[in-house]
Amino acid sequence: MSEPKGAIERLVHELNKLPGIGPKTAERLSHYLLAADRSEVIALADALRDVKDKVHPCRVCFNLTEADVCDICSDSRRDPAILCVVEQPKDVMSLERALAFRGMYHVLGGRLAPLENIGPEKLTLDALVHRVHQGRVREVIMATNPTLEGDGTALYISNLLGESGVKITRLARGVPTGSVLEFANNQMLADALEGRRVF
Amino acid sequence: MSEPKGAIERLVHELNKLPGIGPKTAERLSHYLLAADRSEVIALADALRDVKDKVHPCRVCFNLTEADVCDICSDSRRDPAILCVVEQPKDVMSLERALAFRGMYHVLGGRLAPLENIGPEKLTLDALVHRVHQGRVREVIMATNPTLEGDGTALYISNLLGESGVKITRLARGVPTGSVLEFANNQMLADALEGRRVF
Repeated sequence: MSEPKGAIERLVHELNKLPGIGPKTAERLSHYLLAADRSEVIALADALRDVKDKVHPCRVCFNLTEADVCDICSDSRRDPAILCVVEQPKDVMSLERALAFRGMYHVLGGRLAPLENIGPEKLTLDALVHRVHQGRVREVIMATNPTLEGDGTALYISNLLGESGVKITRLARGVPTGSVLEFANNQMLADALEGRRVF
Repeated sequence: MSEPKGAIERLVHELNKLPGIGPKTAERLSHYLLAADRSEVIALADALRDVKDKVHPCRVCFNLTEADVCDICSDSRRDPAILCVVEQPKDVMSLERALAFRGMYHVLGGRLAPLENIGPEKLTLDALVHRVHQGRVREVIMATNPTLEGDGTALYISNLLGESGVKITRLARGVPTGSVLEFANNQMLADALEGRRVF
């Protein structure tokens, strides 16, 4: 779309920039918003402005927060001896939703990707090493994505922390609960066989 | 979702209200927006605010505009003798995109729907009758949606304008160009047969 001149065209243009929202959807959404209550549209506009004005990385774990230190880091009921290392804040949200982890997090802010010029200096590795060297951490769980780059990042970090003496683990790999073997790929099945447990 | 307390939750909550955007998509979008440039997010917020502050119905045809009279109504190259009656502003946009019409529009602001308590007084019918009675209009094209309610609305309007002497037409019905007959439903085929033209 060329330079949008009117307010409606501008809205369609901006919506169209969002991931997964093509020109048709952007137009449909803008028609919905044109017909919607003013209060609803202003609430959305304010929410957009607020996430940019109020939300920033936690000083400790780099998860997103509106406070100086995030809710998780300041929760005294959580175990500070276990640190779960993830790539992005959204990974924290996914893991929290699973209600299966009561330790702390460390958000890297990405993964090592040499082809995209993302080296170790772009990630929060210094802070991670510092946290581990403070001595309260007993276990670091690598929860980077199960991809080539995520695995590479986990390997790099485990080397980095090798001398610190903490236990380094990674998330289990296998067949996802609720799936069928028919649709599992070779790597999933190989992982599941390799990691098999006594029944 | 219950009362959202933080800025991120509020954004997810507001995005989730949009049509076709479920909780998962709302979360994915909000993560995208959190990582996006501040300028992009503020541009979207401003665009949202602007459509509510600046856009209103055209005084003549009720299409949406930022001016007193919309671009189409104030375009002297268009033919004021032909009036195309549509339900919504988005229908004007669709028809304009087809580049097949050079007359004027009249936006009803909906269609008659007795079950939803939408009667003639909710539509811009008085203004339509007034425009037709001013005497410049020679033809009124009914371009309401080809649905039960759209057809009912067109019928109601054609009765309303019956005494004015203008020619009243409606959009052709048939098989859509680019489709295959195999997937056309009975009504589409019946319409296509009834409206057949000499080859």
